[in-house]
Amino acid sequence: MYGLIGKITAKTDQRDDLIKILLEGTADMPDCLSYIISKDPENEDTIWVTEVWDSKESHKASLSLPSVQEAINKGRPLIAEFGEQTETEPIGGHGLISEEI
Amino acid sequence: MYGLIGKITAKTDQRDDLIKILLEGTADMPDCLSYIISKDPENEDTIWVTEVWDSKESHKASLSLPSVQEAINKGRPLIAEFGEQTETEPIGGHGLISEEI
Repeated sequence: MYGLIGKITAKTDQRDDLIKILLEGTADMPDCLSYIISKDPENEDTIWVTEVWDSKESHKASLSLPSVQEAINKGRPLIAEFGEQTETEPIGGHGLISEEI
Repeated sequence: MYGLIGKITAKTDQRDDLIKILLEGTADMPDCLSYIISKDPENEDTIWVTEVWDSKESHKASLSLPSVQEAINKGRPLIAEFGEQTETEPIGGHGLISEEI
C-alpha cells in the first residue's frame, strides 16, 4: 500500500470552503483505501490530509480523474501553501476499505 | 471527531515486531473510526500512526482497554522515541467506519 500525510495551509478564512471542495472532489476515487480530511485545531488555516492507496500508481492515476482535476482547479486559488508531505507505506489497521459502504 | 497523527521511532531492527504488536493490540477498539499503522520508507526505524475517533474521550478510554494496555507494555521496550504528534479535527472523507467490515 502507498500512503501520504500532507499539510495544506488555506488562505485566510478559506479553510472551510477548501475542505468542502476537497471532500466533494475526492469522494469516489478507485483504489483509494482511506482519504481523511482534517482541520488543525491549533492553526485556523491548516488542513491535514491522510491518504492510503492500494499502490502509488493508483494515487498518481487519481490525479487525472475529472472530479479531482475539478477540485484542484477550484481549490488552488484558496491555497496559501502546500506544507510538509510524508510518503508512507501503510501496513494495516482499521478503516482501510476499497469500496465505500 | 478527534484525530491524531503520530510518529514513533523503534529501536534498531525492532520496527516489524513493534508494528505487529500495535496491529494486534489495536484491532478492536470501540468508537475508533480509523487507525492506520505505516512504515516510513525513508527511515527504517520510523512508524507513522494516523487515528480517527468519534471523540477525544473515546480515544482516552481506549488507553485502558486490556488489549491496548498489553500492546503498550509489550511495545514500550521496542520504542526508542515518541516523535511529533499532531492533534486533528477530522471533518470527513473515505474510510471512516465505526465497525470493521
